[in-house]
Amino acid sequence: MSAKFEKNALGRLVPTEVNGKSQIPYQGVGKYKPTGRKYAPPIASCADYPADGNKIVPSLKDALIKSGLRDGSVISSHHHFRNGDLIAVQIFDIAHELGFKDLVWVPSASFECQSSLTKYLEDGTIHHIEGSMNGSLGRFTSEGKMKGMGILRSHGGRYQAIQDGDVVIDIAVIAAPTADPFGNATGDRGPAACGLLGFALADSQYANKVIVATDNLVPFPCVPWQIHGNYVDYVVVVDQVGIPEKIVSGTTEITKSPDRLLLAEMTAQFCDETGIIHDGFSFQAGAGGTALSIGVYFAEILRERGMKARFARGGSNKYLVKMLEEGLVDYILDGQTFDLEGVRSMRENEGHLNTSPFTSYNYHGKGNFASQVDVVILGATEVDLNFNANVVTHSDGVLLHGIGGWQNCLFSKCTILPIPLFRDRIPVIRDEVTTICGPGELIDVIVTERGIAINPLRTDLIEKLKNSNLPIKTIQQLKDEGEAICGVPEKPKFTDKAVAVIKWVDGTIIDTVWEVE
Amino acid sequence: MSAKFEKNALGRLVPTEVNGKSQIPYQGVGKYKPTGRKYAPPIASCADYPADGNKIVPSLKDALIKSGLRDGSVISSHHHFRNGDLIAVQIFDIAHELGFKDLVWVPSASFECQSSLTKYLEDGTIHHIEGSMNGSLGRFTSEGKMKGMGILRSHGGRYQAIQDGDVVIDIAVIAAPTADPFGNATGDRGPAACGLLGFALADSQYANKVIVATDNLVPFPCVPWQIHGNYVDYVVVVDQVGIPEKIVSGTTEITKSPDRLLLAEMTAQFCDETGIIHDGFSFQAGAGGTALSIGVYFAEILRERGMKARFARGGSNKYLVKMLEEGLVDYILDGQTFDLEGVRSMRENEGHLNTSPFTSYNYHGKGNFASQVDVVILGATEVDLNFNANVVTHSDGVLLHGIGGWQNCLFSKCTILPIPLFRDRIPVIRDEVTTICGPGELIDVIVTERGIAINPLRTDLIEKLKNSNLPIKTIQQLKDEGEAICGVPEKPKFTDKAVAVIKWVDGTIIDTVWEVE
Repeated sequence: MSAKFEKNALGRLVPTEVNGKSQIPYQGVGKYKPTGRKYAPPIASCADYPADGNKIVPSLKDALIKSGLRDGSVISSHHHFRNGDLIAVQIFDIAHELGFKDLVWVPSASFECQSSLTKYLEDGTIHHIEGSMNGSLGRFTSEGKMKGMGILRSHGGRYQAIQDGDVVIDIAVIAAPTADPFGNATGDRGPAACGLLGFALADSQYANKVIVATDNLVPFPCVPWQIHGNYVDYVVVVDQVGIPEKIVSGTTEITKSPDRLLLAEMTAQFCDETGIIHDGFSFQAGAGGTALSIGVYFAEILRERGMKARFARGGSNKYLVKMLEEGLVDYILDGQTFDLEGVRSMRENEGHLNTSPFTSYNYHGKGNFASQVDVVILGATEVDLNFNANVVTHSDGVLLHGIGGWQNCLFSKCTILPIPLFRDRIPVIRDEVTTICGPGELIDVIVTERGIAINPLRTDLIEKLKNSNLPIKTIQQLKDEGEAICGVPEKPKFTDKAVAVIKWVDGTIIDTVWEVE
Repeated sequence: MSAKFEKNALGRLVPTEVNGKSQIPYQGVGKYKPTGRKYAPPIASCADYPADGNKIVPSLKDALIKSGLRDGSVISSHHHFRNGDLIAVQIFDIAHELGFKDLVWVPSASFECQSSLTKYLEDGTIHHIEGSMNGSLGRFTSEGKMKGMGILRSHGGRYQAIQDGDVVIDIAVIAAPTADPFGNATGDRGPAACGLLGFALADSQYANKVIVATDNLVPFPCVPWQIHGNYVDYVVVVDQVGIPEKIVSGTTEITKSPDRLLLAEMTAQFCDETGIIHDGFSFQAGAGGTALSIGVYFAEILRERGMKARFARGGSNKYLVKMLEEGLVDYILDGQTFDLEGVRSMRENEGHLNTSPFTSYNYHGKGNFASQVDVVILGATEVDLNFNANVVTHSDGVLLHGIGGWQNCLFSKCTILPIPLFRDRIPVIRDEVTTICGPGELIDVIVTERGIAINPLRTDLIEKLKNSNLPIKTIQQLKDEGEAICGVPEKPKFTDKAVAVIKWVDGTIIDTVWEVE
């Protein structure tokens, strides 16, 4: 083991240094208190920008060169185009063509459409990724092939890291569905409409140079200006920023699987019996089939009782939009639009609000929205007997997912993970998870098709459900049942090489991802 | 003369140090280039804020004490309630009651309703004001009674100074017409609705502690969140934040004075003949009777020709709102709502946009909106033969006005000052103005009832009007005509004590205000 490691507050071995920068091991929820100051970008002057507001340069290549692209540059991009993104790969094609090496890529998330970047990780164009390493990029990382160490952060952790200067972005490239020559940009309209651009907010505020790339240039002012042109250095007009049908999925639907429907129904019933569903409550659920189904159950309960939710945090989708339009919820506080109905609603409905990791998730702010949500429904690849959960690696140890907003959402008043007891005959509840992404003390309830485990810390919830007909069990019981059916799963095999670290919401390291054997 | 002075690029004597901080003399338009970094506020942690988002404390006094109020604290407030503000004086009443001394007040502007603060300037509670010293506060300053030296900044200069750390705000008190317990706040609704809260944006982003005071608390989320609760430390509910009828003037009307109407008509004709009025043009005019009348002429011309302005920058008022609703302008980019129609329109019309000194005026940004405006109509107390102009002191040398957005607007593509040739039989065009607030190179046209002077630098405008029937004259001719009627005015008499400085948009000192004899 070449790097130095120490055990953090969860007993996990974490490196004391990552890519040459010293690190702080996770100390517990709310324990690490930052003492420094926010990152301070250089002061600009209008004297250096065109008075007529026209910042257009001929190409992305020109913009990157003017922005001072060089060996070791830290370059960021956002993932609002999801698997339809056409810009991130272009950036590194240009950097490769220009012969630059050891770049750092800081995406807000990565997708399969960017898997070709493995060739630049192999040839030294890209040194490492700070963001998420999904799919092929995750597997590449797990196989120990990335030159530097990967750093995974939650959406809120990314804002925190940029704000605090943990990562200093040299050049941010913000692909925008609509923009004006000044750099004002919006995601809610244009051929590649994706809803909002909140994941690029930190980049716009703190990057030293900011490039907006758009395929839909409008005269000043571009309204709404989700991204302020006042932060932007250069504007580039390209043929296409994203492939619309891959940006939003028009087909996200509630689950038809009887098992998943059972999980959804049990979760909704749990929320009802505990009184979590009440007039003026708030909730957040993802865009998966189970989560969508839970939202539909919530809507039914509200409609029946003549009640109304105050707000739903999204990931918006057509089901949430329907609730908003039906008056079952006052506001959608949206961080990412998942379908075309979400995009339309954000554009048209003033109750459908554009949020960002700053408003919703940044732990190094004066509070955020996430902790005010009554209940949040999340997924996990594994959960352990202490309720610690994993969302990034699979049981074979391979890194395949990013953290997203998952860690940030754990701060809600009640966090529920509805998960199947086993997947592909591998039990999901383990003695120890492969990778800890969230500490058990923040995870309140595990709902499986064979029973519900409530975290013993939540004596209030246990008390409320003592006469319930829901199948309340201990997590040990659930684990035993899973293993009785599938057997005790083998542990994944790792070398002693750390290939990536998982940051907690405060910038400390909660766990390490190891090279698979 | 106790302090050290040097001559700046306009030949004006300016202090090298103000209130113990060294200063940079004005160097010319676009000449001073900042090399530092923005001010970096301390990093906060959600661990120190209530998870349920409820930041309410019992009183403004509690909030100020919790915020660490002490001798020498720098305290800011905004002026969106104009002469109806009920909060600023309360802050200093509390500070006085607690016995604190040498405070610095950083309002975005001051009004007569705050004139009672002179007693705290006299007894040492307040050391000096950085912002504006209007009316009684200005006279108090001019009489040499303020302990420290006053600093006047434009709206954009205030954002610049706070962003750059030229002034570090310890405690910002943001009075809000509507807010939620998290500190999200808006100005567009509530009993004291004032439209927007843009003047408090910098304070929210950069002050070490931020207090929101409201008389209209709503459940989270307060929508729109013009001020982000994520920047807010404490929320205080008070009986009344402002007196509605003094906040907005329901009676701002176009001028009925034949002289002023003539100025307005000549200005509009000038804009028409020069081609400034064209399809897609943009303009900014203030809320005075002349400026309003010019807007009405613009509207008539657009309507007749079937043309449309792209945007109007405001100060919004019922005339601009009418243009927006009639489709004569695509957008109002509003920095300050002057009447109830403006407030209503901002709340209801998505073409009526909330702007801030950051978007519109900050010279230390990557461009701003002001330089993109085709024509701006402004006032002045005096203009000199070099087109330098004064907006803060009168011909008797007394400080009576703030700078507002005036300096920032000078960067528009054409700056026109429609002014009477004399006021109270004192000519307005002088050999030298009492106080230079804006350099002549940025002031393009002076329109008086007896002729129009075009800055010789604007050969393009002179060329366009060579066959006009408008009375085009030199500024020397206008000065001579004024003096032929009224005589040569006496110069005001000053001591050698500097009582305040005028900052240019880049933080350098453009002129000094001297104690009147």
